[in-house]
Amino acid sequence: MPQLAPHIFDILYQKGVEHAFGIPGDFALTLFDALADSKIAPIVMTHEPCVGFAADAYSRMRGLGLAVVTYSVGGLNMVNAVAGAYAEKSPLVILSGGPGVREQKEHDLLHHKVKTFDTQRRVYEEVTLYATKLTDPKTADAKIHHALDYATTFKRPVYLEIPRDLVYAEITESEHLPPPIKRTDPDTLTEAIAETLEMLKRSHSPVILACVEVHRFGLQEQLLALAEKLGVPVCSTMLGKSVFPERHPQYIGIYNGEAGDLNVQKIVEESDCVLMLGVFMTDINLGMFTAHLNPGFTVYATSERLAIKHHEYPNVRFEDYITTLLDSPDLPHWDSSGIYTMKPRVTPSVGKISMSGLLYELNQFIDSNTLLVTDVGDALFAADDIQTQQGTSFLCPAFYASMGFGVPGVIGAQLADPSRRAIALVGDGAFHMTGMELLTAQRLRLNPIVIVINNGSFASLQAMGHQEAAFVQIPTMDYAQLANVLGGHGFVIHTSTQLQQALQTAQNSKTFSILDVHLSPDDVSPALQRLSALFTKSLKG
Amino acid sequence: MPQLAPHIFDILYQKGVEHAFGIPGDFALTLFDALADSKIAPIVMTHEPCVGFAADAYSRMRGLGLAVVTYSVGGLNMVNAVAGAYAEKSPLVILSGGPGVREQKEHDLLHHKVKTFDTQRRVYEEVTLYATKLTDPKTADAKIHHALDYATTFKRPVYLEIPRDLVYAEITESEHLPPPIKRTDPDTLTEAIAETLEMLKRSHSPVILACVEVHRFGLQEQLLALAEKLGVPVCSTMLGKSVFPERHPQYIGIYNGEAGDLNVQKIVEESDCVLMLGVFMTDINLGMFTAHLNPGFTVYATSERLAIKHHEYPNVRFEDYITTLLDSPDLPHWDSSGIYTMKPRVTPSVGKISMSGLLYELNQFIDSNTLLVTDVGDALFAADDIQTQQGTSFLCPAFYASMGFGVPGVIGAQLADPSRRAIALVGDGAFHMTGMELLTAQRLRLNPIVIVINNGSFASLQAMGHQEAAFVQIPTMDYAQLANVLGGHGFVIHTSTQLQQALQTAQNSKTFSILDVHLSPDDVSPALQRLSALFTKSLKG
Repeated sequence: MPQLAPHIFDILYQKGVEHAFGIPGDFALTLFDALADSKIAPIVMTHEPCVGFAADAYSRMRGLGLAVVTYSVGGLNMVNAVAGAYAEKSPLVILSGGPGVREQKEHDLLHHKVKTFDTQRRVYEEVTLYATKLTDPKTADAKIHHALDYATTFKRPVYLEIPRDLVYAEITESEHLPPPIKRTDPDTLTEAIAETLEMLKRSHSPVILACVEVHRFGLQEQLLALAEKLGVPVCSTMLGKSVFPERHPQYIGIYNGEAGDLNVQKIVEESDCVLMLGVFMTDINLGMFTAHLNPGFTVYATSERLAIKHHEYPNVRFEDYITTLLDSPDLPHWDSSGIYTMKPRVTPSVGKISMSGLLYELNQFIDSNTLLVTDVGDALFAADDIQTQQGTSFLCPAFYASMGFGVPGVIGAQLADPSRRAIALVGDGAFHMTGMELLTAQRLRLNPIVIVINNGSFASLQAMGHQEAAFVQIPTMDYAQLANVLGGHGFVIHTSTQLQQALQTAQNSKTFSILDVHLSPDDVSPALQRLSALFTKSLKG
Repeated sequence: MPQLAPHIFDILYQKGVEHAFGIPGDFALTLFDALADSKIAPIVMTHEPCVGFAADAYSRMRGLGLAVVTYSVGGLNMVNAVAGAYAEKSPLVILSGGPGVREQKEHDLLHHKVKTFDTQRRVYEEVTLYATKLTDPKTADAKIHHALDYATTFKRPVYLEIPRDLVYAEITESEHLPPPIKRTDPDTLTEAIAETLEMLKRSHSPVILACVEVHRFGLQEQLLALAEKLGVPVCSTMLGKSVFPERHPQYIGIYNGEAGDLNVQKIVEESDCVLMLGVFMTDINLGMFTAHLNPGFTVYATSERLAIKHHEYPNVRFEDYITTLLDSPDLPHWDSSGIYTMKPRVTPSVGKISMSGLLYELNQFIDSNTLLVTDVGDALFAADDIQTQQGTSFLCPAFYASMGFGVPGVIGAQLADPSRRAIALVGDGAFHMTGMELLTAQRLRLNPIVIVINNGSFASLQAMGHQEAAFVQIPTMDYAQLANVLGGHGFVIHTSTQLQQALQTAQNSKTFSILDVHLSPDDVSPALQRLSALFTKSLKG
């Protein structure tokens, strides 16, 4: 009979999980013993918020990821990162150690306890799709499969707590696994495809708006094929950036309502058939509610909901809808050439580096092998004007928008795909939160290039009418010198030339690099300039 | 009519809160505007876990503290620190910004949202005594007073969420404030005091076991007076360390069951009357369940429960019980001289510094003006053999035991009492989590002395039978050099002489200092050696 924790690690390894991010603790010691004996490599990090972000990034890249933490002081220190994974649909499995079943009965005041022995599970219920304690060897196997089905069907985190006295408990394997949570009904699918084709054929100005779920379900190639068959213009949201090759002739840019490129807004909002594929309907994604999408002209397909105009087709899995549509024999075709193509609003800096010049150089530097992670703040808004290449991987927490994702995120992403050249674009405030994790990059011999936007402020808050507020000023330090202390390579950047040289040197470095880019606090990206105006308006309005 | 947030800040300022720890965010921008305009100084930190720890430490020192955070990405990143404040009884008020009432109605997918607009409040229900959203200007005042009554009566955290469109809403002040949550019934108190005196008078070997609530309620002087009137031996738990002067002739040491000083264990467990004042009944506090306290010989008084032998006296406030007992005219008196006095098991190092030598030097260095904060891990266990002076302040997270408390804790504590010379004893693993916060110490011109136990491992996990496990090894760095990068003073310590010199130099430094003390991974404190044996036994048993 298999043993509980080894069984979980076996299943996860078979599903492509080769690394587990975590920090041990006394309630997770045996769980870490089992992990160390499994085929999955334990990646011990410095702080649980980083564990969560790294595992989230890994999940986004691999389709499944794993965080292993100890009870309360571990698990409760990762709630924010897991909330972000939930909000942005990242299929992350959380395994937490816990007090032994016997201890829970005998001792009421075990250390790390908050209110009850259920506190942590109850907290995790609020930020995962499924949260349970594996206290019974008879039901454990079914619960594990149920959890993984949830995680992979809806791309959301799930939580399993393992009492420390059951880590090696012998469990009964389920004879009949629970049925899939969501199955496609073939008749419903056929009807939905027929109506989609009908709508497309009548359309004069169709457009595809692609978002993050296309990436989560690994349907980028299907999207590309579908777009090319249809010949329609394609845009993406910020959260879905790079899901479609940004230098493809059909690509028109990021749709972000009034906050984004107004040409893209016009094409989308004047379309009589918007194919919204895997789109998150959110404020940041949709230009702070300046988006005007008429549901009467949309097909809305996600893992949770398929709707055409105002009616819904239940029981259709997102991936089945996309692949069946792609394989339809009678897809119409348009010629979208010349309509519009993405135009980054950046110019090279002469002399002193500017935000625009930084983005310009990045656009020159990024290639098809780049893995780019942006943190939150102007690092995120700036991405509006970064043009990725076909094949570039791009990750950002564009909806939940938690600062601190960048450094641990790039570590997790680089482990998920070591063949890529990893870059993180991080604000100084976000770097203060999780930059220490570069110590782990050094230990793992990872070599991400971390670009720190050093402007001594929470620039995106400052841009929201708070230019003078003392509480948006933040302390600074010599980030290049810090790189040396942590075992990496540091570069002080004041000019474009220094930036170009640093990027070239860092490119070939075997250790991580910090590029300390000195910018003025009021030098923000074009997207942030527009967004801040909209924010201020929405607050007043 | 007063305005919502300014009103809260006014009340808190009147109750002694002069600093608010926090990080702004878009949903908390107006809340920070109101804070900046109040009499309370905003202390902007680098990361929310640190916000929570610093505010917790401040609350422990001042009797009330304040953390101000933004929605989700702020609040959910502080859950662990707040859970620690709950578990260890720290009266911390959390103010969170939130989506505007109108926004919540109109827009379903506002950024930072997880499941529902109630997610964060529900999470906080699990880690606070009272968690509510102030969405109605008519009921807000009563809720605020209710929350503060909870916080100060039971010394636990409370949570108030303020929609960003109500920060300056005019509110109706309650004509009749809600009645106190717990009032002392005079007759019950009289009866309890009479029985206590009766029990004391019949006792042959009374002893006082004092713990953390004596500190939280500011009853140290009353405890001292009571102990001296009675003349009985006094011990404390680890969580209550320094609540009674450790060089007082009646002080016998830390009671920690078999894990602590066995002389103390014998005196307590053979006593026929143990006055347990403000004691937490926990595993770490009570020697991993090796404590054998017979309830038939105890008086158990806390803010939540007053019990003599096996029966309870409801409706008696802890502070009323202590002060009334102290003022009783017919207190008996014993002569405990010569019974036992605390004996730290430390010896000076000759040449290379050892853990024992480090503790020896610390005992020499600590004076009545010291503020000592210990982090978790061997930094905490080591405190068993640190002997504080009368007047020394000592803080540690001995029950919840979350790593990372040390650096932000000493910042919060030093702001709470700037007249003291602040020292933090921190393991390297804990330092990796929150050490970056020294950037804030530098900005605030605080000068804590941070002693880093540099042994390249999670030593307390290693001591639990995991000497060889790779996952308890952690990376190291040049902490002294890091001090320089962050704007402080760094010292590399290999010998006792270097330690003595560094302590003297750091003592007079106006910036913070890091003392990078190089120890071998297997050189752990005597307390940890004993505890790890008990841990291993409890796991096997």
